[in-house]
Amino acid sequence: MLGDTHGGIAGKIQERVTCSQPRISMPRMNDIMQPPVHEALKPAATQWFAQLRDRICAMFESIEDAAGPTPGRFVRNVWDRPEGGGGQMSVMRGQVFEKVGVNISVVDGQFSPDFAKQMHGAGADGRFWAAGISLVAHLHSPRIPAVHMNTRMIVTTKGWFGGGGDLTPLQPGTAQAAEDAAFFHAAFKAACDRHDPDYYPKYKKWCDEYFFLPHRGEPRGAGGIFYDYLDSGDAEADFAFTRDVGEAFLGSYPDIVRRRMGETFTPAEREAQLIRRGRYVEFNLLYDRGTTFGLKTGGNTEAILMSLPPEVKWV
Amino acid sequence: MLGDTHGGIAGKIQERVTCSQPRISMPRMNDIMQPPVHEALKPAATQWFAQLRDRICAMFESIEDAAGPTPGRFVRNVWDRPEGGGGQMSVMRGQVFEKVGVNISVVDGQFSPDFAKQMHGAGADGRFWAAGISLVAHLHSPRIPAVHMNTRMIVTTKGWFGGGGDLTPLQPGTAQAAEDAAFFHAAFKAACDRHDPDYYPKYKKWCDEYFFLPHRGEPRGAGGIFYDYLDSGDAEADFAFTRDVGEAFLGSYPDIVRRRMGETFTPAEREAQLIRRGRYVEFNLLYDRGTTFGLKTGGNTEAILMSLPPEVKWV
Repeated sequence: MLGDTHGGIAGKIQERVTCSQPRISMPRMNDIMQPPVHEALKPAATQWFAQLRDRICAMFESIEDAAGPTPGRFVRNVWDRPEGGGGQMSVMRGQVFEKVGVNISVVDGQFSPDFAKQMHGAGADGRFWAAGISLVAHLHSPRIPAVHMNTRMIVTTKGWFGGGGDLTPLQPGTAQAAEDAAFFHAAFKAACDRHDPDYYPKYKKWCDEYFFLPHRGEPRGAGGIFYDYLDSGDAEADFAFTRDVGEAFLGSYPDIVRRRMGETFTPAEREAQLIRRGRYVEFNLLYDRGTTFGLKTGGNTEAILMSLPPEVKWV
Repeated sequence: MLGDTHGGIAGKIQERVTCSQPRISMPRMNDIMQPPVHEALKPAATQWFAQLRDRICAMFESIEDAAGPTPGRFVRNVWDRPEGGGGQMSVMRGQVFEKVGVNISVVDGQFSPDFAKQMHGAGADGRFWAAGISLVAHLHSPRIPAVHMNTRMIVTTKGWFGGGGDLTPLQPGTAQAAEDAAFFHAAFKAACDRHDPDYYPKYKKWCDEYFFLPHRGEPRGAGGIFYDYLDSGDAEADFAFTRDVGEAFLGSYPDIVRRRMGETFTPAEREAQLIRRGRYVEFNLLYDRGTTFGLKTGGNTEAILMSLPPEVKWV
């Protein structure tokens, strides 16, 4: 649980700022027993997610700059969670990125007894701490795949990392889609292989199984990797892997966008893209753990639904 | 359960026909004990749902005829459910009706033990029979409210009727929206009052509670009525009430469409309509029992997702 909530367990948006100063409070010490190694990583993880967000936003804005005379810019909203913590949601509507949201959050609190039962390692008091980054990008061009990336660190009586990245071509079945998927997978495989040769096959499979629409009998996209409950016994190594997942994203997806952004497309291809996007909506609202969990536990609706495409058709 | 599935527990679409001959097999006798009064009503209920469908389709096509030189026409798809029964899905994309689907189905079979537990009156063997009609209309004009109507008869070891109708103005808060909602409610209240003075307040409240989006803190629309498990002890009367719900729909919604179809609207109003439609998608995929139940139990995906608006935006 507590997966890709795009806003976690959140409160209300309190103010709109366009500056980039981190507004997130530093992690608080909890008065229950938590894994000391993960406890010690909280500040570094919190800082990493914010830095990764900054680098991604800067990279995407540079793509906008290269694309034409009206480059988009990220607008940032800060939200506080009354029960503890909060987040920052950065959204850009640009000339290449039709809608991209990058959300970071650091939240802590207590699960209700019902939810604690479902929560990995939840103690009697249901205490948890969670920090993470999540990103979803939908592009104007049907030639450019949509993408999702999310990494997180969670602490209950246990501590672990989770996350992943996956690509959604809007013209599946084409040579271009296959080429983009292969490039994306290669970057994530390289990141995995630096840490454990078992990671890529295991996390690729997990991703394929997770991002599947049973009612359509089809995958949401071209996959990628998905991991959760990563607690190898070496929390520093798990954190290093999680950072490499972020680097793999930064090292692959922007290249795909740059490669495809100059390609022209027809109105019919745009129409087909809007229809394919319906699958994305269906997956997120019907099956995605983070979305349904977040919405049903009083999460920040705007941050959670940031993942939905800006325009969709069902025919 | 087995609510508004827009296709019930269904199989694959087998052929496309544009004629209107009923293709649904007549109800089969089950070899378990079922309520004899409901058993006896199966043929009449099956016939009623098909006749109501025919009248609604004819009425909507006549609206299309009145609207301009390119009237839309319903296209009908027949689907069989391998486990028993099937349905007919009628869809029209016209000049007034952007997308309207009217689905009838008659299905029977056995629930899995897991689902049987959730099913009202399910016996040890999980046998059920269900017939119904469901309709969702999304209009081009933001001045014309979307609508949903559904009635059904279900037999397990118990027998009952359920259904309702509800209106979704796309310009909520306007005088026109209030006027349309009042007219729609008055028609359903009159239908209710002919049967029991308690029905309207009770079923209006049920509708308000059911069609509510907790994550938005707002209702899906202007409400209407919603009833389920109706088994008053007089199955003939319950069936008569269910027929009157259909008549209330036929007697009110087409009038609303005719009254509003001549009104002009701006591109900004159309844009606002597409955004409001997002709530409809969110409700149906996150909360609607029939949709989630249907999709997760191998229903006819196309028939179930017929309810989704043809074009939607999230901003």
